[in-house]
Amino acid sequence: MDMMQLDADGLASAQAAAEQSYETLRGRNLALDMTRGKPAPDQLDLADEMLTMVGAGDTAGEDGTDYRNYGILAGIPEARTFFAEYMDVDPAEVVVGGNSSLTMMYDAMAGGMFFGMPRGNDDAAMPWRDQGSIKFICPVPGYDRHFAICERLGVEMITVDMTPDGPDMDAVEALVADDASIKGMWCVPKYSNPSGETYSDETVDRLAAMTVAAPDFRIFWDNAYAVHHLGAGPARVKNLLAACKAAGNPDRALMFGSTSKITHAGAGVAVLAASEVNVTDALEKMFYASIGPDKINQLRHVRFFKDMAGLLSHMDKQAALLGPKFAAVDEALERHLAGKRIARWTKPEGGYFVSVDVLDGCASDIISMAGKAGVKLTPAGATYPYGKDPHDRNIRLAPTMPSVDEIKTAMEVFCTCVELVCARKLSELT
Amino acid sequence: MDMMQLDADGLASAQAAAEQSYETLRGRNLALDMTRGKPAPDQLDLADEMLTMVGAGDTAGEDGTDYRNYGILAGIPEARTFFAEYMDVDPAEVVVGGNSSLTMMYDAMAGGMFFGMPRGNDDAAMPWRDQGSIKFICPVPGYDRHFAICERLGVEMITVDMTPDGPDMDAVEALVADDASIKGMWCVPKYSNPSGETYSDETVDRLAAMTVAAPDFRIFWDNAYAVHHLGAGPARVKNLLAACKAAGNPDRALMFGSTSKITHAGAGVAVLAASEVNVTDALEKMFYASIGPDKINQLRHVRFFKDMAGLLSHMDKQAALLGPKFAAVDEALERHLAGKRIARWTKPEGGYFVSVDVLDGCASDIISMAGKAGVKLTPAGATYPYGKDPHDRNIRLAPTMPSVDEIKTAMEVFCTCVELVCARKLSELT
Repeated sequence: MDMMQLDADGLASAQAAAEQSYETLRGRNLALDMTRGKPAPDQLDLADEMLTMVGAGDTAGEDGTDYRNYGILAGIPEARTFFAEYMDVDPAEVVVGGNSSLTMMYDAMAGGMFFGMPRGNDDAAMPWRDQGSIKFICPVPGYDRHFAICERLGVEMITVDMTPDGPDMDAVEALVADDASIKGMWCVPKYSNPSGETYSDETVDRLAAMTVAAPDFRIFWDNAYAVHHLGAGPARVKNLLAACKAAGNPDRALMFGSTSKITHAGAGVAVLAASEVNVTDALEKMFYASIGPDKINQLRHVRFFKDMAGLLSHMDKQAALLGPKFAAVDEALERHLAGKRIARWTKPEGGYFVSVDVLDGCASDIISMAGKAGVKLTPAGATYPYGKDPHDRNIRLAPTMPSVDEIKTAMEVFCTCVELVCARKLSELT
Repeated sequence: MDMMQLDADGLASAQAAAEQSYETLRGRNLALDMTRGKPAPDQLDLADEMLTMVGAGDTAGEDGTDYRNYGILAGIPEARTFFAEYMDVDPAEVVVGGNSSLTMMYDAMAGGMFFGMPRGNDDAAMPWRDQGSIKFICPVPGYDRHFAICERLGVEMITVDMTPDGPDMDAVEALVADDASIKGMWCVPKYSNPSGETYSDETVDRLAAMTVAAPDFRIFWDNAYAVHHLGAGPARVKNLLAACKAAGNPDRALMFGSTSKITHAGAGVAVLAASEVNVTDALEKMFYASIGPDKINQLRHVRFFKDMAGLLSHMDKQAALLGPKFAAVDEALERHLAGKRIARWTKPEGGYFVSVDVLDGCASDIISMAGKAGVKLTPAGATYPYGKDPHDRNIRLAPTMPSVDEIKTAMEVFCTCVELVCARKLSELT
């Protein structure tokens, strides 16, 4: 039933049916939450063995260094070696930090704003904030925490649309070529948050090689879902740092990752990978705020994974838990909404989200009605800078945390709200 | 033998004797390190039991919250309650963070510079850097990492001398009364780094009550050695926050602490304690850079200590290990240098350092000569802003890390260098 083809009577009866379903569902007094990309307890259980892998008398590194004490700002050598393989770079191109890649990303952008970034052979770093108004490119829809960092630090956000191959590169190239106030760009290259795209090789090559007016331009490459597939093995993304080196722009890439969605979300390990120039710069900035990261927790992680094969096999177990949840989301969307032309949705092969685009002007009302029926969704607009979706159409579903049964119920509510709000909207337009 | 009373011949023979001792010691090819305040392995061993206190199936808080997941920016309730008692404040006045109080102090000062501090009922926060040139008061000698933060953030440092009761309060009061560009002050209130003083009640009351021109003035109260006595139980320092509240200045105090020198130096837990206005402000600032601290490590700490009595008993064990080390330092200083009038030194009752003042103009040479004989000391000037001791006389000894035997040898070298360099200096002046 293509709702776009219905006449006024048809829309009225579709709306009435949806209203009746909605009232029934609301009567169930649900309390379900699909707002945030949090791992579920069964995913976290898979890493519990790690907790006790460093114990008394067993806290030294391979070279005998006592990891209980101060120091080693760049992270323990074992962890730098391990995460170098994870990020596909050399160990000298890695800083292993604390429990949050968000902290490393905030620190990188704050460091750029207040102290500047290396600018190649010519000039000393100059704080971005001393160079006038500063802008970042933000592919949309995107991650609200990236946008929040920009907003907090007074960095103006310029949106470009996502395509199935990554950001619209024609738009990106046109923006950065002449405007030296554009100092960087956010990217989630694999299973992008929220829309699930994986960047094509051509996109990576164009990002690496494009002409950029600002000599201190940086791509903030948040590879949060590098190994987070949903059952068919991780997708491959071309190595940005290698591509930047090949294109003669080795310092353009700042790549971030973490084990927050691999081991324990709050007690993982974060990593920065970049050229040695950028690593040296990051460590100089970190010196003032830290004597070193929690090296014991880094040691726990290295011992738990053993090697990259161990990590990948661990992620296969996570995929086995998450696959059915995403399938339940897709099954509900297909059953309720397929062919109605009121919603399009992604079918991600990894990551933490399903992104739904509904009829323009309907997202806020759908999210609000779902909330009133006991299903919390990511706030409308969250996937756009300043929390404002210009079309009011994008909705991010986060199905990792609830159980499959909870997801089925939540999706019943969600799809009903989509039908109801869209039928109303179409009635108004008829 | 008062060296100040020696004639030229007497000085020449003292110098010759010291030179001979020095050459003998140098021939031993020592490699000893007394540079930094690092706990020794036997101190760290005392907390090893903590490492495995949180394991599989045992990661939830008292209220059932799973501490492996994201969130709880202010720290877990159990840890806030525990560290509230440690800092002598209410749980709502505590933020429990990551592994480093240095990070919390850096973030606090950077937050003041770039975003400002609450200014009471009148006005919104205004970034310090938008208020012209900004200054901090730094009692000297002091902690090089405090000074480094100021230097990094472009905060000018104004020194005031330490007295046995804390900073020279007449000088402090005179400075802050009229100059609104002075936005704060560093304090290490107990067993001060490096000189070991503990602030008197009168000092705390004057700090709390003094008239301050800047409405966004903050005392950075680095209570790093709150329970770190050397055998006679911890000294008592009046509660700054309580004193500030009593004086009508509740937002003046930002108090910091950590377990870095209680459990494991690199894998401890840091804490900020302040008025609820300041805690709310700190959490607002933290939001952009973090989704939450490592709550599992906080849980380990709470379980390990059990209660404040457990922590205090733990610190008694540390005192039993550290007491003999400080006694060895003092014994050597007394034996070699007492009565010679070329050096004065502290006899701390807690903390991590012995501070030695030698004849003016001699500290750099002593540290350099000790280094050549294989005994590394904290660099000359480190205890002063910009690394410049105006009298070139203060030397910080850090006896916690080496063994008692190593300390005895290192002190032999140190005292010989003091005698040698000071005899030379007096000869030049004769």
